[in-house]
Amino acid sequence: MAEIVAIRKTASEGPVQAHLESGILRITLASPPANALSIAMMAALQAEIDRARDDAAIRVLVICATGKVFCAGHDLKELTAHRADVDRGRAFFEETMAACATLMQTIVRCPKPVIAEVDGVATAAGCQLVASCDLAIATDHASFATPGVNIGLFCSTPMVALSRNVSRKHAMEMLLTGEAIDAKTAREFGLVNRVVPREYLAQVVAKYAETIASKSPLTLRIGKEAFYNQAEMGLAEAYDYTARVMVENMLARDAEEGIGAFIDKREPEWTGE
Amino acid sequence: MAEIVAIRKTASEGPVQAHLESGILRITLASPPANALSIAMMAALQAEIDRARDDAAIRVLVICATGKVFCAGHDLKELTAHRADVDRGRAFFEETMAACATLMQTIVRCPKPVIAEVDGVATAAGCQLVASCDLAIATDHASFATPGVNIGLFCSTPMVALSRNVSRKHAMEMLLTGEAIDAKTAREFGLVNRVVPREYLAQVVAKYAETIASKSPLTLRIGKEAFYNQAEMGLAEAYDYTARVMVENMLARDAEEGIGAFIDKREPEWTGE
Amino acid sequence: MAEIVAIRKTASEGPVQAHLESGILRITLASPPANALSIAMMAALQAEIDRARDDAAIRVLVICATGKVFCAGHDLKELTAHRADVDRGRAFFEETMAACATLMQTIVRCPKPVIAEVDGVATAAGCQLVASCDLAIATDHASFATPGVNIGLFCSTPMVALSRNVSRKHAMEMLLTGEAIDAKTAREFGLVNRVVPREYLAQVVAKYAETIASKSPLTLRIGKEAFYNQAEMGLAEAYDYTARVMVENMLARDAEEGIGAFIDKREPEWTGE
Repeated sequence: MAEIVAIRKTASEGPVQAHLESGILRITLASPPANALSIAMMAALQAEIDRARDDAAIRVLVICATGKVFCAGHDLKELTAHRADVDRGRAFFEETMAACATLMQTIVRCPKPVIAEVDGVATAAGCQLVASCDLAIATDHASFATPGVNIGLFCSTPMVALSRNVSRKHAMEMLLTGEAIDAKTAREFGLVNRVVPREYLAQVVAKYAETIASKSPLTLRIGKEAFYNQAEMGLAEAYDYTARVMVENMLARDAEEGIGAFIDKREPEWTGE
Repeated sequence: MAEIVAIRKTASEGPVQAHLESGILRITLASPPANALSIAMMAALQAEIDRARDDAAIRVLVICATGKVFCAGHDLKELTAHRADVDRGRAFFEETMAACATLMQTIVRCPKPVIAEVDGVATAAGCQLVASCDLAIATDHASFATPGVNIGLFCSTPMVALSRNVSRKHAMEMLLTGEAIDAKTAREFGLVNRVVPREYLAQVVAKYAETIASKSPLTLRIGKEAFYNQAEMGLAEAYDYTARVMVENMLARDAEEGIGAFIDKREPEWTGE
Repeated sequence: MAEIVAIRKTASEGPVQAHLESGILRITLASPPANALSIAMMAALQAEIDRARDDAAIRVLVICATGKVFCAGHDLKELTAHRADVDRGRAFFEETMAACATLMQTIVRCPKPVIAEVDGVATAAGCQLVASCDLAIATDHASFATPGVNIGLFCSTPMVALSRNVSRKHAMEMLLTGEAIDAKTAREFGLVNRVVPREYLAQVVAKYAETIASKSPLTLRIGKEAFYNQAEMGLAEAYDYTARVMVENMLARDAEEGIGAFIDKREPEWTGE
């Protein structure tokens, strides 16, 4: 296996901190108590994920948070302040929703796996953030809700991600009642992969991240992209498409190395090509 | 919160009874023992749900049933009688299937949440009826089946709703074997939200209905419509669409009121605008 | 019920054995230890399933395997040998992926239900094979993985079938980590229908197969085809389509017989028409 050089980045200024070690970029929402997705927070997250896309030193992203709230969704005070605009806020609301939709799709389209590490309350667009990640590990202190209905603003963008993770009746229960589910229920619904005691969270997430970081970055990129693409296709189209993906993947150097190493019973050395 | 005026309707004549109280319309299938979806039953259900659409006094619909059978699906004797028609029944079968497809889609398209309250056997189009509701609460006496395969008539329309609630192998097991699943299994499969002892059914359904009835009707309408629309879209299209929905929702009076009330820590007063 | 004549076929030569009894065709992957999906294995499977399509004596197919490995996916040595080809293997890889995509879709499109009987390890395209069957029964010795990522070749075609059976985060965990899940987890995820102790496997699979074989073959054909077709449609289109399917099904002789027998409280006699 190619050695992954451990480098460290100085933590960013602003609402988000980023820390790179051993190929794993931890992006921390650091604007407690709500870690709200203000324009500034979304821009900072967007910048980190965009940077990670092309940084070969980064293999896996982890999105985590400081404080008791993982993320409370949009910044309601920021939104409300713009009701005083001449257009009653329309332009700002459009900017906010566009930034959010872009951010969530950037996670899905990021060529590197993204893991949500959740040890608190994730609501509305915060719940959407968890649902948009490829994997999610939570503690038994985590909870999840789409409570927009309580304040007159249905969680219509959050439900795009939510309803692609959990079944219809489960999604509808969360959306119509606005009530929170605990981590165990979120696991049963398919919103999170694992629930662990708080004291093991870092360890379990690190295990997942290290396992995935040890794979060929090329292979991960090919596979993640193909996964979300084929998910939107009919069966015949999905097979036509993925069969082509497989052939190109087979012809890449990392597959030749990986399959060769497997047959020879040795560790592969990835070049990412 | 706007006061919900408690009014009562005289129970309808015919196979369906309707009772409105505190914004919650209880529609009772009242044609035991089978509560079969005859043309008359479907017309009565359709009429109640259509009326509810535009009646501002109705916030939430509950579909329940008298007797041990929630609903046994289409009326096989009625269908069979039409085999004597000159067209061997084709026109009547087409009428029946069209009425059923319209009814089920009317539930999905109803701007008000619809809850199935199930305390008995729900089979074939009766199972479809449960699957078509936004939420379903069942007792441990409930069971669910798509047994058409046993009588040579595959549950092809029921499976449209069923397969949008439960995973493929679960749906296929029900469809190919025709065997019933109990309420607990239905909950595990995602077909029902909650299973409660019979003596708590009314109370639990009332709790769900009252919780939902306390939300802004405008917000519920916007959200429910967007939910089923976005479910049929690819990710990018779904985000484009729901981002627009969110902006319009933000500009509505009820969102301004709801968000304002939340920031001010007071109860919102919905106007439904 | 029409009597199903018990006939026996001589076991095929080659990597696959087929045995027909009482309308149930057992297709056994018989190339241990890996039961790999070599070109020869895929061709043999394809031939058996193609033959079964039009053989009225066959009601249900069961795919099982000899040895500890149900199926380990593609034959990596066969693939690797073709890297010496002048085109570096491209043509052979294309042939392999096309054969696999055709095989999996043939299972889905087969007018007769196909049950996977799994008592071992099912990985990569082997896991895809299980996911492609209509039903899957496993023992507690079974396990499932999509480990291509470990060897540089993401399981991009297997995930087409996998992701149509299990939720996104579950699929992604299997795909990104390459780690195996046990049978119980596979049942929770929706990949298999039942997990039984090894000593009851044959009995439970036979029970499912016999139950399904007792239904009208025409009805099964109509229903299975409609199931996978409607799964790719929006709600309105799916209802338009299945309503038409139901009408034609109603007009078929087996539905007349089945419904008549149900009303008359007697056993139906299927003619498959």
